[in-house]
Amino acid sequence: MISSSSNAQMKYLVKLQEKGSLRKADRVYICEGRKMFGEVLQYAQESVVKAYFAESCFRENEEEWQQRIKECRVSYEIVSDSVFREVSQTVTPQGVLAVVRQPEYSLASILCDANGCEKNQLCLLLLEDLRDPGNLGTILRTAEGAGMDGVILSAESVDVFNPKVIRATMGAIYRLPFFYAASFTDLLGTLKEHGISIFAAHLAGSQEYDTVRYPKKSAIMIGNEANGLSEQATQLSDARIRIPMEGAVESLNAGVAAAILMYELYRQKRFL
Amino acid sequence: MISSSSNAQMKYLVKLQEKGSLRKADRVYICEGRKMFGEVLQYAQESVVKAYFAESCFRENEEEWQQRIKECRVSYEIVSDSVFREVSQTVTPQGVLAVVRQPEYSLASILCDANGCEKNQLCLLLLEDLRDPGNLGTILRTAEGAGMDGVILSAESVDVFNPKVIRATMGAIYRLPFFYAASFTDLLGTLKEHGISIFAAHLAGSQEYDTVRYPKKSAIMIGNEANGLSEQATQLSDARIRIPMEGAVESLNAGVAAAILMYELYRQKRFL
Repeated sequence: MISSSSNAQMKYLVKLQEKGSLRKADRVYICEGRKMFGEVLQYAQESVVKAYFAESCFRENEEEWQQRIKECRVSYEIVSDSVFREVSQTVTPQGVLAVVRQPEYSLASILCDANGCEKNQLCLLLLEDLRDPGNLGTILRTAEGAGMDGVILSAESVDVFNPKVIRATMGAIYRLPFFYAASFTDLLGTLKEHGISIFAAHLAGSQEYDTVRYPKKSAIMIGNEANGLSEQATQLSDARIRIPMEGAVESLNAGVAAAILMYELYRQKRFL
Repeated sequence: MISSSSNAQMKYLVKLQEKGSLRKADRVYICEGRKMFGEVLQYAQESVVKAYFAESCFRENEEEWQQRIKECRVSYEIVSDSVFREVSQTVTPQGVLAVVRQPEYSLASILCDANGCEKNQLCLLLLEDLRDPGNLGTILRTAEGAGMDGVILSAESVDVFNPKVIRATMGAIYRLPFFYAASFTDLLGTLKEHGISIFAAHLAGSQEYDTVRYPKKSAIMIGNEANGLSEQATQLSDARIRIPMEGAVESLNAGVAAAILMYELYRQKRFL
Protein backbone atom coordinates (compact mmCIF):
# COMPACT_ATOMS: atom_id res chain seq x y z
CA MET A 1 0.00 0.00 0.00
CA ILE A 2 1.19 3.50 -0.84
CA SER A 3 1.00 5.61 2.31
CA SER A 4 3.22 8.58 1.51
CA SER A 5 2.40 11.49 -0.77
CA SER A 6 6.10 11.72 -1.64
CA ASN A 7 5.83 8.35 -3.40
CA ALA A 8 6.89 8.85 -7.03
CA GLN A 9 3.61 7.54 -8.44
CA MET A 10 1.59 9.91 -6.25
CA LYS A 11 3.71 12.87 -7.31
CA TYR A 12 3.14 11.85 -10.92
CA LEU A 13 -0.64 11.69 -10.41
CA VAL A 14 -0.72 15.19 -8.90
CA LYS A 15 1.26 16.52 -11.87
CA LEU A 16 -1.03 14.76 -14.34
CA GLN A 17 -4.07 16.35 -12.70
CA GLU A 18 -2.57 19.81 -13.03
CA LYS A 19 -0.40 19.86 -16.14
CA GLY A 20 -1.80 19.63 -19.63
CA SER A 21 1.75 19.63 -21.02
CA LEU A 22 2.64 16.46 -19.09
CA ARG A 23 -0.62 14.76 -20.15
CA LYS A 24 0.24 15.66 -23.74
CA ALA A 25 3.85 14.47 -23.53
CA ASP A 26 2.91 11.16 -21.91
CA ARG A 27 -0.36 10.77 -23.89
CA VAL A 28 -2.33 9.82 -20.81
CA TYR A 29 -5.00 11.40 -18.62
CA ILE A 30 -6.71 10.70 -15.31
CA CYS A 31 -10.25 9.47 -14.99
CA GLU A 32 -11.69 9.73 -11.49
CA GLY A 33 -14.76 8.44 -9.70
CA ARG A 34 -16.67 5.15 -9.67
CA LYS A 35 -18.95 5.93 -12.57
CA MET A 36 -16.15 7.17 -14.80
CA PHE A 37 -13.92 4.21 -13.86
CA GLY A 38 -16.77 1.83 -14.61
CA GLU A 39 -17.25 3.46 -18.01
CA VAL A 40 -13.55 3.31 -18.87
CA LEU A 41 -13.55 -0.42 -18.10
CA GLN A 42 -16.61 -0.79 -20.32
CA TYR A 43 -15.53 1.31 -23.29
CA ALA A 44 -11.74 1.61 -23.16
CA GLN A 45 -10.53 -1.24 -20.98
CA GLU A 46 -7.36 -1.75 -22.97
CA SER A 47 -6.39 1.91 -22.44
CA VAL A 48 -6.11 1.72 -18.66
CA VAL A 49 -2.47 2.05 -17.64
CA LYS A 50 -3.02 1.68 -13.90
CA ALA A 51 -5.82 2.07 -11.39
CA TYR A 52 -5.49 3.48 -7.85
CA PHE A 53 -7.90 2.69 -5.02
CA ALA A 54 -8.28 4.43 -1.70
CA GLU A 55 -7.91 1.71 0.93
CA SER A 56 -11.38 2.06 2.48
CA CYS A 57 -13.06 2.12 -0.93
CA PHE A 58 -11.26 -1.06 -1.99
CA ARG A 59 -11.87 -2.95 1.28
CA GLU A 60 -15.56 -2.05 1.24
CA ASN A 61 -16.15 -4.10 -1.92
CA GLU A 62 -12.93 -6.06 -2.11
CA GLU A 63 -14.34 -9.16 -3.78
CA GLU A 64 -16.16 -7.17 -6.45
CA TRP A 65 -13.15 -4.99 -7.24
CA GLN A 66 -10.81 -8.01 -7.32
CA GLN A 67 -13.10 -9.74 -9.79
CA ARG A 68 -13.52 -6.75 -12.11
CA ILE A 69 -9.82 -6.02 -12.09
CA LYS A 70 -9.00 -9.60 -12.91
CA GLU A 71 -11.57 -9.73 -15.72
CA CYS A 72 -10.23 -6.52 -17.20
CA ARG A 73 -6.57 -7.37 -16.50
CA VAL A 74 -5.95 -3.98 -14.97
CA SER A 75 -2.90 -3.43 -12.79
CA TYR A 76 -3.58 -1.45 -9.63
CA GLU A 77 -2.30 -0.07 -6.36
CA ILE A 78 -3.94 0.56 -3.01
CA VAL A 79 -3.39 4.02 -1.54
CA SER A 80 -4.05 5.13 2.03
CA ASP A 81 -7.21 7.25 2.33
CA SER A 82 -5.33 10.38 3.41
CA VAL A 83 -2.88 10.21 0.49
CA PHE A 84 -5.72 9.48 -1.92
CA ARG A 85 -7.47 12.64 -0.76
CA GLU A 86 -4.34 14.65 -1.53
CA VAL A 87 -4.12 13.22 -5.04
CA SER A 88 -7.81 13.52 -5.81
CA GLN A 89 -9.18 16.62 -7.50
CA THR A 90 -12.72 16.19 -6.20
CA VAL A 91 -14.20 17.63 -3.01
CA THR A 92 -15.64 14.25 -2.02
CA PRO A 93 -13.26 11.65 -3.46
CA GLN A 94 -14.96 8.41 -4.44
CA GLY A 95 -11.84 6.36 -3.81
CA VAL A 96 -10.89 5.29 -7.33
CA LEU A 97 -8.96 6.88 -10.17
CA ALA A 98 -7.03 5.58 -13.13
CA VAL A 99 -4.31 6.67 -15.51
CA VAL A 100 -5.66 6.09 -19.01
CA ARG A 101 -4.03 6.33 -22.43
CA GLN A 102 -5.45 9.15 -24.55
CA PRO A 103 -7.52 8.06 -27.54
CA GLU A 104 -6.26 9.54 -30.79
CA TYR A 105 -8.56 10.35 -33.69
CA SER A 106 -7.51 11.64 -37.08
CA LEU A 107 -9.61 14.10 -39.05
CA ALA A 108 -10.01 11.40 -41.70
CA SER A 109 -11.48 8.98 -39.15
CA ILE A 110 -14.16 11.56 -38.36
CA LEU A 111 -14.96 12.40 -42.00
CA CYS A 112 -14.82 8.85 -43.37
CA ASP A 113 -16.45 5.55 -42.49
CA ALA A 114 -14.60 2.37 -41.51
CA ASN A 115 -13.91 1.59 -45.20
CA GLY A 116 -12.29 4.97 -45.77
CA CYS A 117 -15.24 6.25 -47.84
CA GLU A 118 -16.44 9.77 -47.15
CA LYS A 119 -19.62 9.73 -45.07
CA ASN A 120 -22.59 11.17 -46.96
CA GLN A 121 -24.30 12.29 -43.78
CA LEU A 122 -22.22 14.11 -41.21
CA CYS A 123 -22.99 16.41 -38.28
CA LEU A 124 -20.02 18.13 -36.69
CA LEU A 125 -19.51 20.59 -33.88
CA LEU A 126 -16.65 23.09 -34.24
CA LEU A 127 -15.40 24.91 -31.14
CA GLU A 128 -13.14 27.96 -31.47
CA ASP A 129 -11.17 28.83 -28.31
CA LEU A 130 -13.68 27.44 -25.84
CA ARG A 131 -12.09 27.95 -22.42
CA ASP A 132 -14.29 26.63 -19.62
CA PRO A 133 -13.68 22.94 -18.76
CA GLY A 134 -17.21 22.45 -17.40
CA ASN A 135 -18.67 23.87 -20.63
CA LEU A 136 -16.57 21.57 -22.80
CA GLY A 137 -17.45 18.48 -20.76
CA THR A 138 -21.16 19.28 -20.89
CA ILE A 139 -20.93 19.98 -24.63
CA LEU A 140 -19.30 16.59 -25.33
CA ARG A 141 -22.02 14.86 -23.29
CA THR A 142 -24.74 16.69 -25.21
CA ALA A 143 -23.00 16.10 -28.55
CA GLU A 144 -23.07 12.34 -28.03
CA GLY A 145 -26.74 12.56 -27.07
CA ALA A 146 -27.58 14.58 -30.18
CA GLY A 147 -25.86 12.03 -32.37
CA MET A 148 -23.05 14.28 -33.58
CA ASP A 149 -20.30 12.49 -35.51
CA GLY A 150 -17.44 14.38 -33.90
CA VAL A 151 -16.21 17.57 -32.27
CA ILE A 152 -13.34 19.59 -33.71
CA LEU A 153 -11.58 22.18 -31.53
CA SER A 154 -9.15 25.02 -32.23
CA ALA A 155 -5.69 24.43 -30.74
CA GLU A 156 -6.27 27.22 -28.18
CA SER A 157 -9.36 25.56 -26.70
CA VAL A 158 -9.31 24.02 -23.23
CA ASP A 159 -7.65 20.60 -23.00
CA VAL A 160 -10.22 17.84 -23.38
CA PHE A 161 -8.13 15.75 -20.96
CA ASN A 162 -8.41 18.33 -18.16
CA PRO A 163 -9.90 16.37 -15.20
CA LYS A 164 -12.87 18.77 -14.96
CA VAL A 165 -13.72 18.17 -18.61
CA ILE A 166 -13.43 14.40 -18.19
CA ARG A 167 -15.82 14.39 -15.21
CA ALA A 168 -18.38 16.65 -16.90
CA THR A 169 -18.52 14.40 -19.99
CA MET A 170 -20.08 11.63 -17.86
CA GLY A 171 -18.40 9.09 -20.13
CA ALA A 172 -18.91 10.68 -23.56
CA ILE A 173 -15.12 11.18 -23.70
CA TYR A 174 -14.74 7.43 -24.28
CA ARG A 175 -17.13 7.32 -27.20
CA LEU A 176 -17.27 10.60 -29.11
CA PRO A 177 -14.44 11.31 -31.57
CA PHE A 178 -12.70 14.69 -31.22
CA PHE A 179 -9.81 16.39 -32.95
CA TYR A 180 -7.68 19.50 -32.29
CA ALA A 181 -6.97 21.48 -35.47
CA ALA A 182 -3.48 22.99 -35.62
CA SER A 183 -4.90 25.79 -37.77
CA PHE A 184 -8.61 26.46 -37.33
CA THR A 185 -8.92 28.44 -40.56
CA ASP A 186 -7.16 25.71 -42.57
CA LEU A 187 -9.58 23.24 -41.01
CA LEU A 188 -12.59 25.27 -42.14
CA GLY A 189 -11.19 25.25 -45.67
CA THR A 190 -10.72 21.48 -45.56
CA LEU A 191 -14.28 20.92 -44.33
CA LYS A 192 -15.65 23.06 -47.16
CA GLU A 193 -13.63 21.07 -49.69
CA HIS A 194 -15.36 18.00 -48.32
CA GLY A 195 -18.78 19.55 -49.02
CA ILE A 196 -19.59 20.33 -45.40
CA SER A 197 -21.67 23.48 -44.81
CA ILE A 198 -20.48 25.56 -41.86
CA PHE A 199 -23.02 27.44 -39.73
CA ALA A 200 -21.55 30.07 -37.41
CA ALA A 201 -23.47 30.70 -34.18
CA HIS A 202 -23.41 34.47 -34.07
CA LEU A 203 -25.30 37.08 -32.04
CA ALA A 204 -25.66 39.12 -35.22
CA GLY A 205 -26.67 36.15 -37.33
CA SER A 206 -29.02 36.91 -40.19
CA GLN A 207 -31.05 33.70 -39.88
CA GLU A 208 -32.78 32.25 -36.85
CA TYR A 209 -31.34 28.80 -36.21
CA ASP A 210 -34.69 27.07 -36.52
CA THR A 211 -35.59 28.59 -39.90
CA VAL A 212 -32.57 27.02 -41.59
CA ARG A 213 -32.79 23.68 -43.40
CA TYR A 214 -29.46 22.06 -42.56
CA PRO A 215 -27.83 20.02 -45.37
CA LYS A 216 -26.87 16.40 -44.71
CA LYS A 217 -23.28 17.42 -44.16
CA SER A 218 -23.35 20.30 -41.69
CA ALA A 219 -21.11 21.74 -39.01
CA ILE A 220 -22.22 24.05 -36.20
CA MET A 221 -19.48 26.46 -35.11
CA ILE A 222 -19.39 27.99 -31.61
CA GLY A 223 -16.93 30.60 -30.32
CA ASN A 224 -15.23 31.62 -27.12
CA GLU A 225 -17.43 32.22 -24.04
CA ALA A 226 -16.53 35.90 -23.68
CA ASN A 227 -15.79 37.00 -27.25
CA GLY A 228 -17.74 34.66 -29.51
CA LEU A 229 -16.31 33.62 -32.87
CA SER A 230 -13.37 35.42 -34.45
CA GLU A 231 -14.04 37.59 -37.48
CA GLN A 232 -11.87 35.27 -39.57
CA ALA A 233 -13.76 32.10 -38.64
CA THR A 234 -17.11 33.85 -39.08
CA GLN A 235 -16.18 34.96 -42.59
CA LEU A 236 -15.23 31.43 -43.58
CA SER A 237 -18.67 30.12 -42.59
CA ASP A 238 -21.46 29.51 -45.11
CA ALA A 239 -24.11 31.22 -42.97
CA ARG A 240 -24.49 32.99 -39.63
CA ILE A 241 -27.25 31.66 -37.47
CA ARG A 242 -28.75 33.25 -34.38
CA ILE A 243 -30.70 31.89 -31.43
CA PRO A 244 -33.54 34.36 -30.83
CA MET A 245 -33.73 35.74 -27.28
CA GLU A 246 -36.46 37.55 -25.38
CA GLY A 247 -35.96 40.01 -22.54
CA ALA A 248 -32.64 41.71 -21.97
CA VAL A 249 -30.49 38.58 -22.26
CA GLU A 250 -27.33 39.42 -24.18
CA SER A 251 -26.26 35.88 -24.88
CA LEU A 252 -26.72 32.31 -23.70
CA ASN A 253 -24.18 30.13 -21.92
CA ALA A 254 -21.94 28.45 -24.56
CA GLY A 255 -22.97 24.95 -23.46
CA VAL A 256 -26.64 25.89 -23.65
CA ALA A 257 -26.29 27.51 -27.07
CA ALA A 258 -24.43 24.47 -28.40
CA ALA A 259 -27.15 22.17 -27.03
CA ILE A 260 -30.01 24.13 -28.61
CA LEU A 261 -28.29 24.14 -32.01
CA MET A 262 -27.23 20.47 -31.94
CA TYR A 263 -30.71 19.34 -30.95
CA GLU A 264 -32.27 21.35 -33.79
CA LEU A 265 -29.89 19.59 -36.18
CA TYR A 266 -30.87 16.27 -34.63
CA ARG A 267 -34.58 17.11 -34.82
CA GLN A 268 -34.27 17.81 -38.54
CA LYS A 269 -32.28 14.62 -39.05
CA ARG A 270 -35.07 12.65 -37.40
CA PHE A 271 -38.10 14.30 -38.99
CA LEU A 272 -37.23 16.06 -42.22
CA MET B 1 -12.26 53.62 4.13
CA ILE B 2 -12.76 50.19 5.68
CA SER B 3 -9.39 48.53 6.12
CA SER B 4 -10.09 45.78 8.64
CA SER B 5 -11.86 42.52 8.01
CA SER B 6 -13.14 42.62 11.60
CA ASN B 7 -15.26 45.66 10.67
CA ALA B 8 -18.90 44.80 11.43
CA GLN B 9 -20.05 45.47 7.84
CA MET B 10 -17.36 43.21 6.44
CA LYS B 11 -18.30 40.42 8.83
CA TYR B 12 -21.91 40.85 7.74
CA LEU B 13 -20.96 40.61 4.05
CA VAL B 14 -19.05 37.36 4.61
CA LYS B 15 -22.04 35.90 6.45
CA LEU B 16 -24.40 37.00 3.69
CA GLN B 17 -22.21 35.28 1.10
CA GLU B 18 -22.30 32.02 3.02
CA LYS B 19 -25.61 31.81 4.85
CA GLY B 20 -28.92 31.40 3.08
CA SER B 21 -30.73 31.64 6.44
CA LEU B 22 -29.33 35.14 7.05
CA ARG B 23 -30.18 36.24 3.49
CA LYS B 24 -33.71 34.98 4.07
CA ALA B 25 -34.09 36.62 7.50
CA ASP B 26 -32.80 39.98 6.27
CA ARG B 27 -34.39 39.65 2.81
CA VAL B 28 -31.22 40.77 1.04
CA TYR B 29 -28.55 39.22 -1.13
CA ILE B 30 -25.18 40.14 -2.57
CA CYS B 31 -24.56 40.96 -6.20
CA GLU B 32 -20.92 41.01 -7.21
CA GLY B 33 -18.92 42.15 -10.23
CA ARG B 34 -19.08 45.13 -12.57
CA LYS B 35 -21.58 43.70 -15.01
CA MET B 36 -23.96 42.51 -12.30
CA PHE B 37 -23.66 45.83 -10.42
CA GLY B 38 -24.36 47.71 -13.65
CA GLU B 39 -27.45 45.58 -14.24
CA VAL B 40 -28.75 46.07 -10.70
CA LEU B 41 -28.47 49.84 -11.15
CA GLN B 42 -30.33 49.54 -14.45
CA TYR B 43 -33.11 47.18 -13.39
CA ALA B 44 -33.42 47.36 -9.61
CA GLN B 45 -31.75 50.61 -8.58
CA GLU B 46 -34.17 51.23 -5.72
CA SER B 47 -33.31 47.82 -4.23
CA VAL B 48 -29.65 48.57 -3.59
CA VAL B 49 -29.04 48.83 0.16
CA LYS B 50 -25.36 49.63 -0.05
CA ALA B 51 -22.49 49.27 -2.49
CA TYR B 52 -18.88 48.41 -1.61
CA PHE B 53 -15.89 49.27 -3.80
CA ALA B 54 -12.35 47.97 -3.58
CA GLU B 55 -10.15 51.06 -3.34
CA SER B 56 -8.17 50.50 -6.53
CA CYS B 57 -11.30 49.75 -8.55
CA PHE B 58 -12.96 52.96 -7.34
CA ARG B 59 -9.93 55.20 -7.85
CA GLU B 60 -9.40 53.84 -11.37
CA ASN B 61 -12.68 55.36 -12.57
CA GLU B 62 -13.49 57.66 -9.67
CA GLU B 63 -15.39 60.30 -11.66
CA GLU B 64 -17.52 57.78 -13.46
CA TRP B 65 -18.41 55.87 -10.27
CA GLN B 66 -19.15 59.12 -8.39
CA GLN B 67 -21.50 60.21 -11.12
CA ARG B 68 -23.36 56.89 -11.40
CA ILE B 69 -23.70 56.62 -7.63
CA LYS B 70 -25.05 60.15 -7.40
CA GLU B 71 -27.52 59.56 -10.25
CA CYS B 72 -28.73 56.36 -8.64
CA ARG B 73 -28.61 57.73 -5.08
CA VAL B 74 -26.75 54.69 -3.84
CA SER B 75 -24.91 54.84 -0.53
CA TYR B 76 -21.48 53.23 -0.60
CA GLU B 77 -18.22 52.51 1.20
CA ILE B 78 -14.66 52.15 0.00
CA VAL B 79 -12.84 49.02 1.18
CA SER B 80 -9.10 48.34 1.07
CA ASP B 81 -8.16 45.91 -1.71
CA SER B 82 -6.95 43.22 0.68
CA VAL B 83 -10.13 43.29 2.78
CA PHE B 84 -12.25 43.30 -0.39
CA ARG B 85 -10.50 40.13 -1.53
CA GLU B 86 -11.40 38.45 1.75
CA VAL B 87 -15.05 39.40 1.40
CA SER B 88 -15.34 38.55 -2.29
CA GLN B 89 -16.44 35.09 -3.39
CA THR B 90 -14.79 35.26 -6.79
CA VAL B 91 -11.30 34.11 -7.71
CA THR B 92 -10.55 37.38 -9.48
CA PRO B 93 -12.60 40.03 -7.66
CA GLN B 94 -13.75 42.87 -9.91
CA GLY B 95 -13.77 45.36 -7.04
CA VAL B 96 -17.47 46.04 -6.61
CA LEU B 97 -20.31 44.32 -4.80
CA ALA B 98 -23.63 45.44 -3.38
CA VAL B 99 -26.15 44.37 -0.78
CA VAL B 100 -29.51 44.28 -2.57
CA ARG B 101 -33.04 43.78 -1.28
CA GLN B 102 -34.61 40.53 -2.51
CA PRO B 103 -37.43 40.92 -5.02
CA GLU B 104 -40.62 39.19 -3.91
CA TYR B 105 -43.06 37.69 -6.39
CA SER B 106 -46.40 36.10 -5.53
CA LEU B 107 -47.75 33.13 -7.47
CA ALA B 108 -50.66 35.39 -8.53
CA SER B 109 -48.26 37.92 -10.03
CA ILE B 110 -46.84 35.16 -12.23
CA LEU B 111 -50.22 33.74 -13.29
CA CYS B 112 -52.01 37.07 -13.80
CA ASP B 113 -51.36 40.22 -15.76
CA ALA B 114 -51.02 43.72 -14.28
CA ASN B 115 -54.82 44.08 -14.08
CA GLY B 116 -55.20 40.87 -12.07
CA CYS B 117 -56.69 38.95 -15.03
CA GLU B 118 -55.42 35.44 -15.66
CA LYS B 119 -53.00 35.37 -18.57
CA ASN B 120 -54.30 33.32 -21.49
CA GLN B 121 -50.82 32.45 -22.68
CA LEU B 122 -48.33 31.26 -20.11
CA CYS B 123 -45.05 29.31 -20.24
CA LEU B 124 -43.66 28.22 -16.91
CA LEU B 125 -40.65 26.25 -15.77
CA LEU B 126 -41.04 24.09 -12.65
CA LEU B 127 -37.93 22.88 -10.82
CA GLU B 128 -38.16 20.13 -8.22
CA ASP B 129 -35.19 19.96 -5.82
CA LEU B 130 -32.61 21.35 -8.22
CA ARG B 131 -29.37 21.52 -6.21
CA ASP B 132 -26.51 22.94 -8.26
CA PRO B 133 -26.18 26.76 -8.09
CA GLY B 134 -24.48 26.99 -11.49
CA ASN B 135 -27.29 24.97 -13.08
CA LEU B 136 -29.98 27.18 -11.55
CA GLY B 137 -28.25 30.40 -12.62
CA THR B 138 -27.82 29.14 -16.19
CA ILE B 139 -31.44 27.96 -16.27
CA LEU B 140 -32.75 31.38 -15.21
CA ARG B 141 -30.62 33.03 -17.91
CA THR B 142 -31.95 30.64 -20.56
CA ALA B 143 -35.53 30.97 -19.26
CA GLU B 144 -35.47 34.73 -19.79
CA GLY B 145 -34.05 34.19 -23.28
CA ALA B 146 -36.76 31.67 -24.16
CA GLY B 147 -39.46 34.10 -23.04
CA MET B 148 -40.69 32.05 -20.09
CA ASP B 149 -43.16 33.88 -17.84
CA GLY B 150 -41.69 32.60 -14.59
CA VAL B 151 -39.85 29.86 -12.77
CA ILE B 152 -41.36 28.01 -9.81
CA LEU B 153 -39.14 25.99 -7.48
CA SER B 154 -39.76 23.42 -4.77
CA ALA B 155 -38.80 24.62 -1.29
CA GLU B 156 -35.87 22.17 -1.20
CA SER B 157 -34.23 23.62 -4.32
CA VAL B 158 -30.99 25.62 -4.12
CA ASP B 159 -31.40 29.23 -2.92
CA VAL B 160 -31.79 31.56 -5.88
CA PHE B 161 -29.94 34.22 -3.85
CA ASN B 162 -26.83 32.03 -3.47
CA PRO B 163 -23.97 34.18 -4.91
CA LYS B 164 -23.06 31.49 -7.45
CA VAL B 165 -26.62 31.46 -8.77
CA ILE B 166 -26.71 35.26 -8.97
CA ARG B 167 -23.50 35.39 -11.00
CA ALA B 168 -24.56 32.61 -13.39
CA THR B 169 -27.87 34.38 -14.18
CA MET B 170 -25.91 37.20 -15.88
CA GLY B 171 -28.67 39.61 -14.80
CA ALA B 172 -31.78 37.50 -15.45
CA ILE B 173 -32.34 37.45 -11.67
CA TYR B 174 -33.43 41.11 -11.87
CA ARG B 175 -36.01 40.51 -14.56
CA LEU B 176 -37.46 37.00 -14.44
CA PRO B 177 -40.16 36.31 -11.81
CA PHE B 178 -39.60 33.27 -9.59
CA PHE B 179 -41.44 31.71 -6.70
CA TYR B 180 -40.68 29.01 -4.10
CA ALA B 181 -43.65 26.72 -3.47
CA ALA B 182 -44.05 25.65 0.18
CA SER B 183 -45.63 22.41 -1.08
CA PHE B 184 -44.66 21.36 -4.59
CA THR B 185 -47.56 18.92 -4.95
CA ASP B 186 -50.08 21.57 -3.83
CA LEU B 187 -48.56 23.89 -6.38
CA LEU B 188 -49.05 21.36 -9.19
CA GLY B 189 -52.72 21.07 -8.16
CA THR B 190 -53.12 24.85 -8.23
CA LEU B 191 -51.54 25.13 -11.68
CA LYS B 192 -53.88 22.47 -13.04
CA GLU B 193 -56.90 24.33 -11.59
CA HIS B 194 -55.69 27.32 -13.61
CA GLY B 195 -55.76 25.28 -16.81
CA ILE B 196 -52.00 24.90 -17.11
CA SER B 197 -50.77 21.62 -18.66
CA ILE B 198 -47.78 20.13 -16.89
CA PHE B 199 -45.12 18.27 -18.89
CA ALA B 200 -42.71 16.18 -16.85
CA ALA B 201 -39.20 15.78 -18.30
CA HIS B 202 -38.64 12.10 -17.70
CA LEU B 203 -36.09 9.57 -18.98
CA ALA B 204 -38.94 7.08 -19.38
CA GLY B 205 -41.26 9.61 -21.01
CA SER B 206 -43.68 8.15 -23.53
CA GLN B 207 -43.53 11.10 -25.96
CA GLU B 208 -40.50 12.73 -27.53
CA TYR B 209 -40.47 16.40 -26.52
CA ASP B 210 -40.57 17.64 -30.09
CA THR B 211 -43.59 15.58 -31.13
CA VAL B 212 -45.84 17.26 -28.55
CA ARG B 213 -48.00 20.26 -29.43
CA TYR B 214 -47.79 22.35 -26.27
CA PRO B 215 -50.99 24.20 -25.26
CA LYS B 216 -50.92 27.96 -24.76
CA LYS B 217 -50.69 27.47 -21.02
CA SER B 218 -47.90 24.97 -20.41
CA ALA B 219 -45.36 24.19 -17.73
CA ILE B 220 -42.17 22.18 -18.21
CA MET B 221 -41.14 20.31 -15.06
CA ILE B 222 -37.51 19.29 -14.38
CA GLY B 223 -36.23 17.22 -11.45
CA ASN B 224 -33.16 16.87 -9.30
CA GLU B 225 -29.78 16.44 -11.05
CA ALA B 226 -29.09 12.98 -9.61
CA ASN B 227 -32.55 11.51 -9.10
CA GLY B 228 -34.83 13.25 -11.58
CA LEU B 229 -38.46 13.99 -10.69
CA SER B 230 -40.14 12.36 -7.71
CA GLU B 231 -42.78 9.73 -8.39
CA GLN B 232 -45.38 12.00 -6.80
CA ALA B 233 -44.62 15.00 -9.01
CA THR B 234 -44.43 12.80 -12.11
CA GLN B 235 -47.86 11.33 -11.40
CA LEU B 236 -49.40 14.78 -11.07
CA SER B 237 -48.16 15.77 -14.55
CA ASP B 238 -50.34 15.68 -17.65
CA ALA B 239 -47.70 13.97 -19.78
CA ARG B 240 -44.16 12.64 -19.56
CA ILE B 241 -41.84 13.91 -22.23
CA ARG B 242 -38.44 12.60 -23.17
CA ILE B 243 -35.45 14.08 -24.96
CA PRO B 244 -34.21 11.39 -27.36
CA MET B 245 -30.53 10.51 -26.97
CA GLU B 246 -28.10 8.66 -29.22
CA GLY B 247 -25.06 6.69 -28.07
CA ALA B 248 -24.68 5.51 -24.51
CA VAL B 249 -25.64 8.83 -22.86
CA GLU B 250 -27.81 8.13 -19.82
CA SER B 251 -29.09 11.64 -19.33
CA LEU B 252 -28.30 15.25 -20.17
CA ASN B 253 -27.12 17.95 -17.78
CA ALA B 254 -30.19 19.51 -16.08
CA GLY B 255 -29.43 22.98 -17.47
CA VAL B 256 -29.03 21.57 -20.97
CA ALA B 257 -32.26 19.55 -20.75
CA ALA B 258 -34.18 22.60 -19.50
CA ALA B 259 -32.76 24.69 -22.35
CA ILE B 260 -33.73 22.19 -25.07
CA LEU B 261 -37.29 21.93 -23.72
CA MET B 262 -37.80 25.67 -23.17
CA TYR B 263 -36.53 26.49 -26.66
CA GLU B 264 -38.90 23.95 -28.21
CA LEU B 265 -41.77 25.65 -26.37
CA TYR B 266 -40.51 28.99 -27.62
CA ARG B 267 -40.14 27.69 -31.18
CA GLN B 268 -43.74 26.52 -31.17
CA LYS B 269 -44.91 29.85 -29.72
CA ARG B 270 -43.16 31.67 -32.55
CA PHE B 271 -44.16 29.45 -35.50
CA LEU B 272 -47.26 27.39 -34.72
